[in-house]
Amino acid sequence: MANKLKLGIPKGSLQDATLDLFKRAGWEIYASGRSYFPTINDPEIECMLVRAQEMARYVETGALDAGLTGNDWILENNSDVERVTSLTYSKASRQKVKWVLAVPENSTFQKPEDLAGKVIATELVEYTKRYFAEKNIPVKVEFSWGATEVKPPMLCDAIVEVTETGSSLRANRLRIIETLMESETQLIANKASYTDEWKKKKIGNLSMMLNGAIAALSQVGLMLNVPKANLDAVLNVLPALSSPTVSHLRDSDWVAVNTILEEAVVREVIPRLKAAGGSGIVEYPLSKVVL
Amino acid sequence: MANKLKLGIPKGSLQDATLDLFKRAGWEIYASGRSYFPTINDPEIECMLVRAQEMARYVETGALDAGLTGNDWILENNSDVERVTSLTYSKASRQKVKWVLAVPENSTFQKPEDLAGKVIATELVEYTKRYFAEKNIPVKVEFSWGATEVKPPMLCDAIVEVTETGSSLRANRLRIIETLMESETQLIANKASYTDEWKKKKIGNLSMMLNGAIAALSQVGLMLNVPKANLDAVLNVLPALSSPTVSHLRDSDWVAVNTILEEAVVREVIPRLKAAGGSGIVEYPLSKVVL
Amino acid sequence: MANKLKLGIPKGSLQDATLDLFKRAGWEIYASGRSYFPTINDPEIECMLVRAQEMARYVETGALDAGLTGNDWILENNSDVERVTSLTYSKASRQKVKWVLAVPENSTFQKPEDLAGKVIATELVEYTKRYFAEKNIPVKVEFSWGATEVKPPMLCDAIVEVTETGSSLRANRLRIIETLMESETQLIANKASYTDEWKKKKIGNLSMMLNGAIAALSQVGLMLNVPKANLDAVLNVLPALSSPTVSHLRDSDWVAVNTILEEAVVREVIPRLKAAGGSGIVEYPLSKVVL
Amino acid sequence: MANKLKLGIPKGSLQDATLDLFKRAGWEIYASGRSYFPTINDPEIECMLVRAQEMARYVETGALDAGLTGNDWILENNSDVERVTSLTYSKASRQKVKWVLAVPENSTFQKPEDLAGKVIATELVEYTKRYFAEKNIPVKVEFSWGATEVKPPMLCDAIVEVTETGSSLRANRLRIIETLMESETQLIANKASYTDEWKKKKIGNLSMMLNGAIAALSQVGLMLNVPKANLDAVLNVLPALSSPTVSHLRDSDWVAVNTILEEAVVREVIPRLKAAGGSGIVEYPLSKVVL
Amino acid sequence: MANKLKLGIPKGSLQDATLDLFKRAGWEIYASGRSYFPTINDPEIECMLVRAQEMARYVETGALDAGLTGNDWILENNSDVERVTSLTYSKASRQKVKWVLAVPENSTFQKPEDLAGKVIATELVEYTKRYFAEKNIPVKVEFSWGATEVKPPMLCDAIVEVTETGSSLRANRLRIIETLMESETQLIANKASYTDEWKKKKIGNLSMMLNGAIAALSQVGLMLNVPKANLDAVLNVLPALSSPTVSHLRDSDWVAVNTILEEAVVREVIPRLKAAGGSGIVEYPLSKVVL
Amino acid sequence: MANKLKLGIPKGSLQDATLDLFKRAGWEIYASGRSYFPTINDPEIECMLVRAQEMARYVETGALDAGLTGNDWILENNSDVERVTSLTYSKASRQKVKWVLAVPENSTFQKPEDLAGKVIATELVEYTKRYFAEKNIPVKVEFSWGATEVKPPMLCDAIVEVTETGSSLRANRLRIIETLMESETQLIANKASYTDEWKKKKIGNLSMMLNGAIAALSQVGLMLNVPKANLDAVLNVLPALSSPTVSHLRDSDWVAVNTILEEAVVREVIPRLKAAGGSGIVEYPLSKVVL
Repeated sequence: MANKLKLGIPKGSLQDATLDLFKRAGWEIYASGRSYFPTINDPEIECMLVRAQEMARYVETGALDAGLTGNDWILENNSDVERVTSLTYSKASRQKVKWVLAVPENSTFQKPEDLAGKVIATELVEYTKRYFAEKNIPVKVEFSWGATEVKPPMLCDAIVEVTETGSSLRANRLRIIETLMESETQLIANKASYTDEWKKKKIGNLSMMLNGAIAALSQVGLMLNVPKANLDAVLNVLPALSSPTVSHLRDSDWVAVNTILEEAVVREVIPRLKAAGGSGIVEYPLSKVVL
Repeated sequence: MANKLKLGIPKGSLQDATLDLFKRAGWEIYASGRSYFPTINDPEIECMLVRAQEMARYVETGALDAGLTGNDWILENNSDVERVTSLTYSKASRQKVKWVLAVPENSTFQKPEDLAGKVIATELVEYTKRYFAEKNIPVKVEFSWGATEVKPPMLCDAIVEVTETGSSLRANRLRIIETLMESETQLIANKASYTDEWKKKKIGNLSMMLNGAIAALSQVGLMLNVPKANLDAVLNVLPALSSPTVSHLRDSDWVAVNTILEEAVVREVIPRLKAAGGSGIVEYPLSKVVL
Repeated sequence: MANKLKLGIPKGSLQDATLDLFKRAGWEIYASGRSYFPTINDPEIECMLVRAQEMARYVETGALDAGLTGNDWILENNSDVERVTSLTYSKASRQKVKWVLAVPENSTFQKPEDLAGKVIATELVEYTKRYFAEKNIPVKVEFSWGATEVKPPMLCDAIVEVTETGSSLRANRLRIIETLMESETQLIANKASYTDEWKKKKIGNLSMMLNGAIAALSQVGLMLNVPKANLDAVLNVLPALSSPTVSHLRDSDWVAVNTILEEAVVREVIPRLKAAGGSGIVEYPLSKVVL
Repeated sequence: MANKLKLGIPKGSLQDATLDLFKRAGWEIYASGRSYFPTINDPEIECMLVRAQEMARYVETGALDAGLTGNDWILENNSDVERVTSLTYSKASRQKVKWVLAVPENSTFQKPEDLAGKVIATELVEYTKRYFAEKNIPVKVEFSWGATEVKPPMLCDAIVEVTETGSSLRANRLRIIETLMESETQLIANKASYTDEWKKKKIGNLSMMLNGAIAALSQVGLMLNVPKANLDAVLNVLPALSSPTVSHLRDSDWVAVNTILEEAVVREVIPRLKAAGGSGIVEYPLSKVVL
Repeated sequence: MANKLKLGIPKGSLQDATLDLFKRAGWEIYASGRSYFPTINDPEIECMLVRAQEMARYVETGALDAGLTGNDWILENNSDVERVTSLTYSKASRQKVKWVLAVPENSTFQKPEDLAGKVIATELVEYTKRYFAEKNIPVKVEFSWGATEVKPPMLCDAIVEVTETGSSLRANRLRIIETLMESETQLIANKASYTDEWKKKKIGNLSMMLNGAIAALSQVGLMLNVPKANLDAVLNVLPALSSPTVSHLRDSDWVAVNTILEEAVVREVIPRLKAAGGSGIVEYPLSKVVL
Repeated sequence: MANKLKLGIPKGSLQDATLDLFKRAGWEIYASGRSYFPTINDPEIECMLVRAQEMARYVETGALDAGLTGNDWILENNSDVERVTSLTYSKASRQKVKWVLAVPENSTFQKPEDLAGKVIATELVEYTKRYFAEKNIPVKVEFSWGATEVKPPMLCDAIVEVTETGSSLRANRLRIIETLMESETQLIANKASYTDEWKKKKIGNLSMMLNGAIAALSQVGLMLNVPKANLDAVLNVLPALSSPTVSHLRDSDWVAVNTILEEAVVREVIPRLKAAGGSGIVEYPLSKVVL
């Protein structure tokens, strides 16, 4: 039988961003309507849509060879899996999310210990129980089906909730008193699958191409022509790590410089390149960057 | 302080149908954007949006005086609450839903006992555990975050899942081997609140008007004129329970008949009324029916 | 085997209006997604979605017992079917549509005879051929797949096209020189089916209820109280055909008048009823009117 | 030439609600795409869409015979027009709007006089200037093209702005220090047109039907059967102004009661009617109410 | 008079994809609302929207100089036109479509001959008639206005229908017993127009640019730096046809390689380039490729 | 305190195009919901959404350091501001807009002087008053709240209105008799701010990057390989201003040519490059062009 990699794609809020990332990395995944088994244009891969919350559980048992999920849910499931790479591509921002302990703004709670004997609502029940158990603080942890941040103080005393900027917590008049964990998306693999040479290489290629596509999102190409006399001045403007390619032109007084830059610095760099004697400066988009 | 009833409205799939029902019953609830505390045009009521899954838990503790949720989630939470009335108004159909035990079409499982030692995925973990424990069948029950029906056989052996028509189960090539429970929406009350006279009356009025609005959905008014000579023939056509109102007209050879009918029978009844001598037959819509 | 009526529902532009009409008449038809065999809440009927253009063909062969389609397509197919009733319920207007012969505004064509030897594009090829053959005018009739009105003069000389108001023809700078046919929706039946007593009665009930629902669209109920002294004046205001019901009240100086009116005249009638001494005038909506 | 009433319909935020109101009152107005001259199903009326801000100006000059606009814009234009009736039908609420003087929350301004020498931004420039001139407070009033409430304190010192609930002002951290005017929609007429008998009667009918449609929005019909013995008890439950119609039934122990009620009280009245001995209580919707 | 090319653009399902293709090829076509004569930013071209089904007919008569349509409709119309180039750009896939003969899954028909005497429904009436006539199989071919695949066995015995993957046929429980034709989009020209030198060159440029834009859809640019020592290893990784450009760098130990690749192989090639010693690998998008 | 540039972004029809332009220039501006103070990914800039009509007023007073608005509104406000650069990026076309004097098609007005004593409606009241005052033509200029072009002749005699193609004026049967002004978007600065060195440099960088992003919209990159023998022929095909870069290849018989071209000429240039001996011609998109 041909080699086949069983790959879990996160269903839900991450799904569209994940399919988009795979497309830019070179794999088109078609998730048609209600099917949980999307097709992929690679005969060596078999996809299944699985909730991020359950992904690690099924990668651990080997039902899946590999999958994408957050560090938070790996820990919640306490799963023994191989962490292949971190992938920071979530839509809204490219920062890690945090799971925090939050209490009503006007409560007297200041630290985890103050919650002894209280009720804490969270989606992350097992991790939260272990956290408080390790600190020997007795609390009641209740599973919350959603809208956790509106519950205190009417329905519970405190919550453990995920947040990026804290704005939803503030809007609900909650105050953060502790950060329990930071989390980002991981490509994980089943430990047994990762000892299979073919699967390990396949997963490695996936990792390289996904990272190449992510890198291209924040980088651009820049080309310019430079009189030889100004070349050092121009190269000094470029960031140390950009390793520009300098090539000869038929007109031997000039050289062409081609380089890769973080998009975020381009608006500072171009005016300085021009001041340093560069001309014909052109920025062009990239699809993948593998340094 | 004025009397106030704390009322839980089910968040999620039932929400729009519930707000619509309340509107037809006489209460406008405005659920603006992301707020979980919708306003209501009744100063004696305070609303909160709560997941159906958690409603019974918070009505039991008294955080809410009353709420709407399914029988299934009352049982899952094993909550001790007052069941005031059943309300059958769910959007798609007006039938009860069923929680069933389903297995892969081509598996050998035929009855609950065959699942001894197997893994069952479900959203209704506690109820399912009690069900199998009572039958002394040892199974592993796993919480499922959704898409339960795509899991067998790859991710589990069987599932306990909710269904109306069974079509989603069939589409996933699953076979039902047992019905564990039927469920419909309930208006429930906190037991202590229900001993408070004001609250009990308020809940009773709510119940009467909600039921009046539900009844009006499937009933219509019918008016017709009938020559006195044909009145018995016409009345014989009307269903026994419709108790028509017969009133005198200025033209003393005729009477007017006004009645309430199930909408479902109108298409049969009108042709027969006409055949029996009725004329000027008019059907008109109703907003509430309290018999 | 139980009796069953095979009923064709027009697929396409009339479909939504037809389903809505059936719903108001008492039959709910669920056309889910791409299925051409919608379900209906009447075990005695079996529905199929069929293009209006082909309906008469399949009612004629008996593949369907009955169906709804336009007079135009019955004639185009030259089908031998029973015409049960006309049903004027199309969304935009409630007028008949016309099939007209149209030529470029600035052409010299003035009458059908002027088109001898010319090319005519139309969707209604067979009917158009017969029309010109009967007049002994030799023309070339070409089937048009759509956008017929943009074709003259570049792609053909004249067209036979359907129109309600003529505005699309004018916008394309075309001039009507002849009306070939008027058309409206018909409920048709297979001739053999129509000799079956059960089917004939079933089709008759359908016809009565569909017409009752159509009538209710343009009529309303009106109730008012009238001092006996003013009754004649009030009745004189009401249209001759409205046959109002006059009933006694407990207060014997007053009577109650209840009547059905065309909605279009209400805005004229109410001010005159009030001037004639009516009071407490109330208009209410109707769902069906079977006089 | 036939009589014709030139009627201005407010373009913009009130437009949809206005067309809907006219439809319920008995006039269908078709505002197709970009045309400012919608068609209406009444050959005696000619419509034009005109901004509410400019309506009174053009009714005053006689370019329009009548129109709908707010009291605020009549005063802003200082127009000499006939006010025929108030019409309270705006979508969000049915309350009057207010034009208020608002200042930054944390400013020291407490009353209009404190703004002497300051800059006030508003859409209602002329009215505001007259207001402050009458109080002999010298201010600079600047026309604001929109988003007035975000301007203080960066772009101006205070604003005169319209508000229903004040929530937008609060959200922009503004504090109301004075209410300058309350406003609601008016049907206005040109003074000369209003002396023309035909036009005055036509405008009067419009006014009656528009008010009849508005009244029907908040009222419902209620029918019930009552044993004669309980009639007084039942009638005592009904609000004083509802003037119920009581009619005889063939069964002489019973009477039928039919009445019109404010929808807002139905949820209180029905339980009390039932307690008083009413049965077969039915609520039905109304389209127009002209008492 | 200036030279002008009359060009037919396919109206309907291909339209958006066609306009998008022309835009990428360098021509912006604006199809505003209902007009069938879109504007184009090239004074030498005049566009008309024409149904793919009729395109060949009007190119053959010379009403159009050139146009885009499928091979299937050229054959259905039996048109004598110049086929300039094939263009495979349809949205869903980039494969040819097939017209197949399909019968009910559970019928006994196995080959075309089995349909002698039967009724076949299809949109491709003329081609189908010729096909069966050439095989001397007598069948009745009926024009189908759409939804052809739901007709057997109720409304006909077999169908000739277009399909890409066969999934719609399978969903309707039909079985393919013969492929009659494969089809893809063609740029066609009127034979007389194609002898005009100016028109032939204009059509040739169109063909080159359309093909250049199509090629760019599936290809990407790849740049990398390579130590001279590894150049052969790197070049061996690249597909034979990619003809990479190798250029000198100022640092004479390194060269820059720039090449065009099929996007489909990039995910395989990049890991191997890196293994062969390439670095700074960058993929960039292309707009046109003319080799 | 750190340096900070207060920048006005035009609210309304230009807003989306402006945010898109800034994004391509290197600045991401997030305008969340109803806030008028969008965030920007540059700690040195503070944004405010301001109507184009009011922008110049607030840049003149120094409430803003810089802003984008049309030349028309600078003149309407008669503001004394620094004009930094013109930016032509409006969505529909990239032409200047015109403010014109228009009269009813069938009126006798032929020149501005003919309007002496008449009423002119416009949004540009002050500029229009100055225009007619300078010509000593007495007119009444009325502010128009919108839909200006439907007003003549019913509500006014002539209008001064903005237009790109004149099509809206023609559709309202108006005739242009004079162009009063042409206008395009300007980056403007407060005169005092522009003497501050840091602010002037910051505004200069903004100007360079915005212009670089605009230039890239209409230009593309083109690469091709050329046998040395054909190089002159190839270079002759390229537009004089394109200044191509010619670089050596390892295969010394060939050179690589890389150049920037107006996208509009590519469809003409590529066929001629190919005819001149170029091969492997590739067009690629650009993000910024700073020559």
